[in-house]
Amino acid sequence: MQDAQIINSRDLEFQLFEVLEVETLTRRARHADHSRETFDAALDTAHTVAVEKFATHNRLADEHEPQFDGQRVTLPAEVKDALDAMRASGFLAAGKDYEWGGMQLPSVISFACLSLFKSANIATASYAMLTTANANVIERFGSETQKRKYLQALFEGRAFGTMALTEPQAGSSLSDLVTSATPNADGTYSIRGNKIFISGGDHELSENIVHLVLARIPGGPPGVKGISLFTVPKFHVNEDGSLGARNDVALAGLIHKMGWRGTTSTMLSFGEHGECIGELVGEPHHGLAYMFHMMNEARIGVGLGAVMLGYRGYLASLDYARERPQGRRPDNKNPLDPQLPLIEHADVRRMLLAQKAYVEGAYALCLYAARLVDEQNTGESETVRAEAGLLLDLLTPVVKSWPSQWCLEANSLAIQIHGGYGYTREYPVEQFYRDNRLNMIHEGTHGIQAIDLLGRKVTMKQGAALKQLAREIQQTIGTAREHPALHAHADALGAAWTDLTATVEALLPTLTHESERALANANAFLEAFGHIVIAWTWLRQAIVANAALSASHSEADADFYRGKLHACQWFFRWELPRVALMLATLRTLDDTTLAMAPQWF
Amino acid sequence: MQDAQIINSRDLEFQLFEVLEVETLTRRARHADHSRETFDAALDTAHTVAVEKFATHNRLADEHEPQFDGQRVTLPAEVKDALDAMRASGFLAAGKDYEWGGMQLPSVISFACLSLFKSANIATASYAMLTTANANVIERFGSETQKRKYLQALFEGRAFGTMALTEPQAGSSLSDLVTSATPNADGTYSIRGNKIFISGGDHELSENIVHLVLARIPGGPPGVKGISLFTVPKFHVNEDGSLGARNDVALAGLIHKMGWRGTTSTMLSFGEHGECIGELVGEPHHGLAYMFHMMNEARIGVGLGAVMLGYRGYLASLDYARERPQGRRPDNKNPLDPQLPLIEHADVRRMLLAQKAYVEGAYALCLYAARLVDEQNTGESETVRAEAGLLLDLLTPVVKSWPSQWCLEANSLAIQIHGGYGYTREYPVEQFYRDNRLNMIHEGTHGIQAIDLLGRKVTMKQGAALKQLAREIQQTIGTAREHPALHAHADALGAAWTDLTATVEALLPTLTHESERALANANAFLEAFGHIVIAWTWLRQAIVANAALSASHSEADADFYRGKLHACQWFFRWELPRVALMLATLRTLDDTTLAMAPQWF
Repeated sequence: MQDAQIINSRDLEFQLFEVLEVETLTRRARHADHSRETFDAALDTAHTVAVEKFATHNRLADEHEPQFDGQRVTLPAEVKDALDAMRASGFLAAGKDYEWGGMQLPSVISFACLSLFKSANIATASYAMLTTANANVIERFGSETQKRKYLQALFEGRAFGTMALTEPQAGSSLSDLVTSATPNADGTYSIRGNKIFISGGDHELSENIVHLVLARIPGGPPGVKGISLFTVPKFHVNEDGSLGARNDVALAGLIHKMGWRGTTSTMLSFGEHGECIGELVGEPHHGLAYMFHMMNEARIGVGLGAVMLGYRGYLASLDYARERPQGRRPDNKNPLDPQLPLIEHADVRRMLLAQKAYVEGAYALCLYAARLVDEQNTGESETVRAEAGLLLDLLTPVVKSWPSQWCLEANSLAIQIHGGYGYTREYPVEQFYRDNRLNMIHEGTHGIQAIDLLGRKVTMKQGAALKQLAREIQQTIGTAREHPALHAHADALGAAWTDLTATVEALLPTLTHESERALANANAFLEAFGHIVIAWTWLRQAIVANAALSASHSEADADFYRGKLHACQWFFRWELPRVALMLATLRTLDDTTLAMAPQWF
Repeated sequence: MQDAQIINSRDLEFQLFEVLEVETLTRRARHADHSRETFDAALDTAHTVAVEKFATHNRLADEHEPQFDGQRVTLPAEVKDALDAMRASGFLAAGKDYEWGGMQLPSVISFACLSLFKSANIATASYAMLTTANANVIERFGSETQKRKYLQALFEGRAFGTMALTEPQAGSSLSDLVTSATPNADGTYSIRGNKIFISGGDHELSENIVHLVLARIPGGPPGVKGISLFTVPKFHVNEDGSLGARNDVALAGLIHKMGWRGTTSTMLSFGEHGECIGELVGEPHHGLAYMFHMMNEARIGVGLGAVMLGYRGYLASLDYARERPQGRRPDNKNPLDPQLPLIEHADVRRMLLAQKAYVEGAYALCLYAARLVDEQNTGESETVRAEAGLLLDLLTPVVKSWPSQWCLEANSLAIQIHGGYGYTREYPVEQFYRDNRLNMIHEGTHGIQAIDLLGRKVTMKQGAALKQLAREIQQTIGTAREHPALHAHADALGAAWTDLTATVEALLPTLTHESERALANANAFLEAFGHIVIAWTWLRQAIVANAALSASHSEADADFYRGKLHACQWFFRWELPRVALMLATLRTLDDTTLAMAPQWF
């Protein structure tokens, strides 16, 4: 296998340093030791480890699924090697305080590093992502004891983390969880119940596993208001940090998936023998709110994973299209002329351009979201921090859902460019497609994101988040107007936004009084909203590219900027127009789906 | 595993007997022995064999791919059992003359029977479909000797057939085939070359395999004009029909695919030892035209396969949505209320309705195409037969491509309805999705269908086919206008058709003088055209349903017709509007894809 191309490094540089101006973060106290050089060093190290340790077993782990012999779960040795290398290079705590052994990198940089691991091997990188997200919850809401027992181990990767929400009978309906947590005299809780689809739920990649488990304390309120959060380690942890006896958490079975096979997906049984001990995190009955911190982080992680799978497929198909000779121009009927590379065919270029527009647009969105986390954490004023938080809340369902849908479509196009070869397991693209199909499902399905966006995020705090986004978008439109080449795009985005605002206003009364009808087409709202947001990320990129084009020092740079402008144009001509249609139908409060009686199917 | 639901039988009855009025075919001499009862008997038998013999090993064959030990290819025994049952019940020659042992069923009925086998198990059904298509070529273009040697064996399934076109260095570019066929003194040809992606290229399911091979006779013209067609049996056939020695055709390797794993996909080496003997079919250098008879049949078969995979997933997810309790209405916050079945959620109903609209609309198109084959073969006048042929030519790229795209989307929705379970291999829908992804690729990619439609079919014979379709569509619109409930749909389809005609006229001059530019967005034309055709099939169904609704004898019938009308409405409200956008951009002759320089990526 040739060296896997996991990223277009020029694009990553563009996104971070030209569009997001990440270097300015080094002016903040927390990142004062950092510089462009330290950022580059982190990215380079991540790139090297990702290419050498992660990409190399991506197919292998797909072909050799986790095995469970009734006692132990085994994975290919390469998975542990890769995670050990990631641990050793400090990426599990890249953004953490020095006192925890972290590097205090800005979120956007550690997120960019994570993107490289995900691109190289989404399944192996999952263990790390879940661990970081788990640690973040404990760091924020855990007691001092919990921090002492678990946090350092998680940051160092001696323990890995999970999020144990889903139960077989409840699925997405967290309200219907039944796992119980009965208080013991010593302040601990006895956990009893079954969880399903728990990623990383069992393995021997780390010394310990810390499950964050949602369960009900008997006597609490029904529904989501009676859910509490617990730390449940696989092995008990002694006061000195050493590992004790095994806790009563049993692997009830592995789940066999279409893709993403390198990550163990498990059914876990807690307290089969009545001896599963957990510790309450924070206050009783507030568990869902705590877990949502992890969930929101995981949702952004899912979006990023979807992007990177799409990105990887795009690069693979670009490579293939440049190298594979195939056919001639439609107006050339001379069979004695040599065949042209695939990339010379308009339809292949369309498929490449669409992939580029999807994956680079979505990558820009994900990195922007990570940049918002930095604003939220280290922004210069309370207002800036609050605004960033609002915006991140509003954008999270889009970050989760848009890449899962469109970067999957990118993967389909990558297969298509490869023709019959793309459908075979001898080429990598079919795996990306299988892996990516999960992303519309886990950490809240597409439908749940849609209801979250239209039913909650758009209206929260009297629409404050939407107004904040409106200001950001209007600012971009204003700047774009200073570039004659971008006038048409600025107008188109402005019109789409006006349309969106009108739609929200048209839906608002119904949202309040007849929410089922207003939410019936929430999916279309999510799609339209997502397309507008991605158009915006493209316009932001185009502004930078257009300004840089005239000042380009090299032909390669100029080509790169022209490609950005062209992909932006493609998105505005072929994708953005769909928004007006969806919004128009939404404004009619069309009830076709709602009115379809179940017995008519 | 419960009994697999491979079809909604009420829908099949509706399509065949209410929409296509298939019973009228019994008035034709060729089908005079037939009646509604014999049609039903054939469909019932096919259904039984499909459910009992085909559906039962669909997952098994996916999990146990063909194995090649260097000598023999082995498949699970169930594959041969199923094909033996299909053979025994006569479906390999269902439409053939009595003198060949056939049943002289109309094409549309044997096609409907085939649809049941495909729904039950696409990979196993492939062997049969390829065999029939292969036999049809030999029947039409083969010599008496070839017919004697191969035809009866193919009809009886003692021999299976393949189509051996693709070569590694040429892919879709048939012009670049290099396999050679050197004449021998005895009138045979020595074949030498390599073929790839040959489905059913080796196995022990039948006594013999008849390859139809494209090759060049040395000295012939270059390009597609120098391609000839040959029968190349795996085992030579003696004059008395008995099998002789093994021909020099070797299996160079099996191809491992994402899905469709039950069908052997092979690399074949012809004449490695200089001893591969083939027999010319028809005239030298006319091979591609002959092969296109098989190819066109295969393309319609691909479309049908895509539909049935979509259909199967739709039924599975409908079942799941009715049985799985999950959550409550958005306006019900009481967690003590019982959970509702998934189907009660608007977004789930949307996903079911979309699937229904895609698969039943596409099924209607495929069956209509098969009905056209009957018109072509047994239509009452030369004019009727010619018009049917024209229409079939025009529609073939749509029959091939539209279901491959949209019934794959249906499979994605079926997974989505299942949530996390849908992504596991414990449920059937993930396999349908993997299987269906092939259909956009084989027998001519999506891009090739697009160029075929816009570059050839639309303009052929001074646009005669397009005019023929226009007449058919206008007739449907006229009838729809007699139904007040369908006025809006009639208007919408009329407007879309006007739009399409205007687009063709706008593109025509460029098609002639600057074909690369005109064809650059052929893909969008194919999509728009396809959506209009499917809208038309829906309007045809809605007319019948609307008329029947008031006369319904049972509530179940009334529900069925209401469902048809509702699915039609969904398609017209949520899908058809996209057409105007695509056509408008097409009329601008947008050159975004063409202008994207390869070095800008």
